[in-house]
Amino acid sequence: MPGKSPITAFKLGFIFVLYCHTKGVLLSGFSQVLVIAACGCLLRMKPVIVVQGGAGRIMPERKKAYLLGVKQAALSGSKKLQQGGSVVDAVEEAVVVMENDPIFNAGCGSVLNEHGEVEMDAIIMDGKYLETGAVSAVRNIANPVKLARLVMEKTGHVLLTDRGASQFAKAMNIPEVPGESLITEKAILRWKKNKKPVDCEQALGTVGAVAVDSEGNVACATSSGGKTNKMLGRVGDTPCIGSGGYADNFSGAVSTTGNGETIMKVTLARLVLFHIEQGKSPREAAETALKYMLDRIQSKAGLIVVNNSGDYAAVFTTDHMSWAAVKDDQLHYGLSQGELHTCSISDVPL
Amino acid sequence: MPGKSPITAFKLGFIFVLYCHTKGVLLSGFSQVLVIAACGCLLRMKPVIVVQGGAGRIMPERKKAYLLGVKQAALSGSKKLQQGGSVVDAVEEAVVVMENDPIFNAGCGSVLNEHGEVEMDAIIMDGKYLETGAVSAVRNIANPVKLARLVMEKTGHVLLTDRGASQFAKAMNIPEVPGESLITEKAILRWKKNKKPVDCEQALGTVGAVAVDSEGNVACATSSGGKTNKMLGRVGDTPCIGSGGYADNFSGAVSTTGNGETIMKVTLARLVLFHIEQGKSPREAAETALKYMLDRIQSKAGLIVVNNSGDYAAVFTTDHMSWAAVKDDQLHYGLSQGELHTCSISDVPL
Repeated sequence: MPGKSPITAFKLGFIFVLYCHTKGVLLSGFSQVLVIAACGCLLRMKPVIVVQGGAGRIMPERKKAYLLGVKQAALSGSKKLQQGGSVVDAVEEAVVVMENDPIFNAGCGSVLNEHGEVEMDAIIMDGKYLETGAVSAVRNIANPVKLARLVMEKTGHVLLTDRGASQFAKAMNIPEVPGESLITEKAILRWKKNKKPVDCEQALGTVGAVAVDSEGNVACATSSGGKTNKMLGRVGDTPCIGSGGYADNFSGAVSTTGNGETIMKVTLARLVLFHIEQGKSPREAAETALKYMLDRIQSKAGLIVVNNSGDYAAVFTTDHMSWAAVKDDQLHYGLSQGELHTCSISDVPL
Repeated sequence: MPGKSPITAFKLGFIFVLYCHTKGVLLSGFSQVLVIAACGCLLRMKPVIVVQGGAGRIMPERKKAYLLGVKQAALSGSKKLQQGGSVVDAVEEAVVVMENDPIFNAGCGSVLNEHGEVEMDAIIMDGKYLETGAVSAVRNIANPVKLARLVMEKTGHVLLTDRGASQFAKAMNIPEVPGESLITEKAILRWKKNKKPVDCEQALGTVGAVAVDSEGNVACATSSGGKTNKMLGRVGDTPCIGSGGYADNFSGAVSTTGNGETIMKVTLARLVLFHIEQGKSPREAAETALKYMLDRIQSKAGLIVVNNSGDYAAVFTTDHMSWAAVKDDQLHYGLSQGELHTCSISDVPL
């Protein structure tokens, strides 16, 4: 019975002791404690990580690369957890893998603004005390999510933007990279083809990850290059807490993707967690929030969500969203509506 | 019975017609329509506007100026509504008045960043279709809230930051003002006195306004100079939708003030409206959200809120928050806990 939260596992142990008592099997006080502790350890929830590589319409010839990318990211994040890393370490690692993969619209591979430049947004959040760090419109760094984490851990602030984010990156000795090193052929083609910002129906959102550990600690991270041909200094949902991501140990963690402007209008990540707080499962919460977004402002999006008991969902109203999850030593992944592949993580040929 | 929403007023007319029917008083079809329409018009809600001038600890010698400022802002916003302006016009006008008043930490009077410069944040939101505009870390303009409105109305984006916000301001022919023109003696004194960012217990938050019209349309606007000695490029809660403000015709509108970093962690504005959606009054919703913030992350704040039926509340857990409201031709205002003054708007000696 893997996947049980530690509290549930201990409760089951307690129920077993009570059951023994009603059947006349009397356990000594020490034995009772031992049984409860054993249940707690044996049945404790295994960590779960889920990643998303952007929602939108993915061209058939690019699907394989997207799936490979999210699988690699989920496995890297999962490995971090197995090695004793925290949920924050895991989501950061998963997002770094996708920032470094030029197929995704984040880090290297980011889409270009109206001037043909890369400006990136990122957020990271630790659900324990709601600690958060974010950067917006940052340039010339390879991994905005790492800078977001430094904002969270090394400053008294939550969000640094543009020149301030660059100044902070220098102070933290983050290597400055030439803007061109983040620009791909594909990004240039997209930029030349379009005259104005492209919404999520054609383009691709963000990358992101959510994770929960065996103690019920949750975290999220999201990173994005934004919209092709966006105005200089445009900030999307990604670094905006409650829109691009939110994590709270009392409920769960969410990372969203799609058209940033409409995701912001419904504070999508926080909305999903409000539904979880009201007793919905991750899938029900995600579907309810995405349906509300469609009904209220006629906009599609995608998201990944995990609750503090280890249940997760990857839900999207767009045509596609590449996603992958590692749970109970199984890798789950998909890209189209209804698509779900499962295999043992030891079988993945990466 | 002023203060009833139009829907409630029409319902009352409908109930009256039904009552006549049960008593044997038969009205013609035309008379029935007339009665319902008359109830709708006579009992319709009057517009309400509420403003806040920042939460924190206000020195006794500055209290009078704060109260004068918020009263002026509320009356200016109210006048806009009386003249047929929209709720968006009204909240913009009220915030502009406070941005221009050097007593407040917004526009002229903003606190200074670590380099002794003014960088400002602002947001405006129209509750009808959740349209929003915001700017962060913007410099050299007198009224960030006006620029936020232009972002909402003239771009496909929600948030522009730093250099991008400046570029957009130029394109919109917003006059550039010297940074020094926004800096007050008080701001310089505060900057010199402090070595690191100051939290809301000592300093003052933001300015903001919320309004509802007779149709139940709501809007909010918030504007801030941020924290004294903040890092370059620090963005607070103000331009972050759901944190510094949120407006939704289905529930109401909120503008928050206090320590931006902690307000963001609980997405305070959206949290208040979630409680309203679940049936709480504005006061109950505000108190519940502020108590949660205090319990969960041990942080105080303040906020103003109005629901779509015209009920409002100005609630704060800090020592002070200057606020004023115009409702039913009465001006209400206060600054300390439990302080409430009421007078006719025609009696205000401004």
